[in-house]
Amino acid sequence: MTQPVQFQLTHTDPGGARAGVLSTPRGEVNTPIFMPVGTAAAMKALTPAQLKETGAQIVLSNAYHLENQPGAELVEKMGGLHQFMQWDGPMLTDSGGYQVFSLKKKTVEEEGVTFSYEKDGRSVSLTPESSMAIQNQLGADIIMAFDECVEFPTTYGYAKTSLERTLRWAARCKKAHTNQSQALFGISQGGLWEDLRQRSMDGLLELDFPGYAIGGLSVGEGLDNMNRTLDFTTNMMPTDKPRYLMGIGLPEDILSAVERGIDMMDCVIPTKFARSGVLFTSMGKIRVTNSEYRRDKYPVDSSCECYTCKQFSRAYIHHLFAANEVLGATLTSIHNVHFYMNLSFQMQDAIKAGRFSAFKAEFLEKYSRQENRKKRPSTQENRKKKAYKQGKQK
Amino acid sequence: MTQPVQFQLTHTDPGGARAGVLSTPRGEVNTPIFMPVGTAAAMKALTPAQLKETGAQIVLSNAYHLENQPGAELVEKMGGLHQFMQWDGPMLTDSGGYQVFSLKKKTVEEEGVTFSYEKDGRSVSLTPESSMAIQNQLGADIIMAFDECVEFPTTYGYAKTSLERTLRWAARCKKAHTNQSQALFGISQGGLWEDLRQRSMDGLLELDFPGYAIGGLSVGEGLDNMNRTLDFTTNMMPTDKPRYLMGIGLPEDILSAVERGIDMMDCVIPTKFARSGVLFTSMGKIRVTNSEYRRDKYPVDSSCECYTCKQFSRAYIHHLFAANEVLGATLTSIHNVHFYMNLSFQMQDAIKAGRFSAFKAEFLEKYSRQENRKKRPSTQENRKKKAYKQGKQK
Repeated sequence: MTQPVQFQLTHTDPGGARAGVLSTPRGEVNTPIFMPVGTAAAMKALTPAQLKETGAQIVLSNAYHLENQPGAELVEKMGGLHQFMQWDGPMLTDSGGYQVFSLKKKTVEEEGVTFSYEKDGRSVSLTPESSMAIQNQLGADIIMAFDECVEFPTTYGYAKTSLERTLRWAARCKKAHTNQSQALFGISQGGLWEDLRQRSMDGLLELDFPGYAIGGLSVGEGLDNMNRTLDFTTNMMPTDKPRYLMGIGLPEDILSAVERGIDMMDCVIPTKFARSGVLFTSMGKIRVTNSEYRRDKYPVDSSCECYTCKQFSRAYIHHLFAANEVLGATLTSIHNVHFYMNLSFQMQDAIKAGRFSAFKAEFLEKYSRQENRKKRPSTQENRKKKAYKQGKQK
Repeated sequence: MTQPVQFQLTHTDPGGARAGVLSTPRGEVNTPIFMPVGTAAAMKALTPAQLKETGAQIVLSNAYHLENQPGAELVEKMGGLHQFMQWDGPMLTDSGGYQVFSLKKKTVEEEGVTFSYEKDGRSVSLTPESSMAIQNQLGADIIMAFDECVEFPTTYGYAKTSLERTLRWAARCKKAHTNQSQALFGISQGGLWEDLRQRSMDGLLELDFPGYAIGGLSVGEGLDNMNRTLDFTTNMMPTDKPRYLMGIGLPEDILSAVERGIDMMDCVIPTKFARSGVLFTSMGKIRVTNSEYRRDKYPVDSSCECYTCKQFSRAYIHHLFAANEVLGATLTSIHNVHFYMNLSFQMQDAIKAGRFSAFKAEFLEKYSRQENRKKRPSTQENRKKKAYKQGKQK
């Protein structure tokens, strides 16, 4: 049987980063790739035309949110997710596992999870079978197994019990998944324990998925713990299948993950930060709502080629936020998603040229300038305050 | 001295509607024309690129709001309003008169008006001279005289006193307006009284403006009163100058106004209604948030050529509002502004063909279908309820 989604590894950087091609029923995607998240069948504040212009290749949507509103059955009747939201490129849906397990009130049993929708208190249960049914109805090109994302910190005992159940759920997902036009990816769990990650990956490999995701990271464990876990987990993963790190992250996290052989990442950060006025630039993050940008004639990032940077000043975007104009969120979202896509393309080029480590170092050196610039005045201020205090104490 | 804005009347429909060309430093605009309102140097929820795609030709912004945030002096430093918001087509700014007079707390004196900004309570005064200075700094192609927009209903005595003061203010505006790249339009007041409108127009004509606006309508007087006032006021206006009816309106108001010889109109209705889910279609208004559109596969208006109608279903837009996705406001705003622009272009064609009255009748006949359709079920429901009640009483 031919898999609907195939992966071809084309380059391996001396440091471990990988470049490849992910083939889907809706086109090819070069990896490593960042996947922007359009939770409710919409990229927040962006039309599909604007999203395409950012360079986005494959986008995420969420089974949990879509089953809640408008319902997967309705989306199917409307011709499926691609048709409904008018995104004709590749798509991936999350299983709902992450969302359900982040709810406070839930009952986890062998059968599945019972919980209440926050919106209307309606009690529902989600099982491996129902998650597959929902994702089949939505019709994304890649769908995810229903897993338990264990919170951090947790005990070894619970992480072990949970991953074993998640493996049994993965087997049920595989059995329930009958739509041959969608690829089902397995999700590894096991927290920060190497032996549990090994057990989880062994179990998934036995089931043989066309792609493997690493779940249970980016839950508050910190970059060092994440890197350490990625180091041993990616070693357990087959080289000929795509590796997807879920819910990552900041640019520095993405560079770390790709350095460790990750091919796919997703995160709400670019759009979420955009809506609060935080913009990613080659020189670091800036908060455009700060008063220093009120009269700033320059674009967000002079080296950026996005619509926002080609057209508008920081002063104008600052004004839009001050005037509560929603256009502010649109312009900042365009820029941030473009920044993340551009980072993906730069990483691909660097890997192909066998110079990923150098690229990462250059990127981070430049990227830390803004952060350092911000620190300087406050240090000076502290010195002044200290001197003033000492003067007073004399 | 050559005026920066010129008007050429090209066609007069047998019924009185006019078609012409308004020449501005930033291009020609065919009239009659609806001007969308981007109050705070932004068309709400639309980028300038999206706004241009709707067919918008000339857009409004507001001196009152912009002086409040970010300040006209800052806009000037950023290269003026066109550069700041990246709209390279013709622009018009309102003087702030309408906004100031809609405030509850204000002091009107011969010198000007003193009031507090709602946002921060800061007390400021606006005078003919300061309004000119602000509008000069903003740099729109057409700027408006500072007038008092009297509320409805008012007394004959107050309307008379106020219009005389507004005439003195108009003279002061003319004197204070020194930027020869902007055209200053006068504004007629005088409520619903023919003799007061005559006095107001005579005073303005003596001052000789390149264009004349009718203010003080669309303040709750109703369509009949507006039509009656327009009938005698447009008769007082020169035929070779553009006639601008301020703050109008619904499609039916626009048709009435154009039939009476109005060339320019502006209103927040298309964008404001859009944000609450009310969409204009050739068959009348629909409220896309209503449950009947939850599973509706059809576009908002099958005969519409806008991005929203070419791409999305009513069901998807319904979903966006249900999920609180701001993309809903963007898609509905694109459609509504496109609808208003298309109405303008259709009116121009009808006038050029000498069949405006027939066009108006056809438009309204079709436009009223949705409204009639909505009335029918509720009448049936009432009948059912009545029958049920009568049955119970027996």
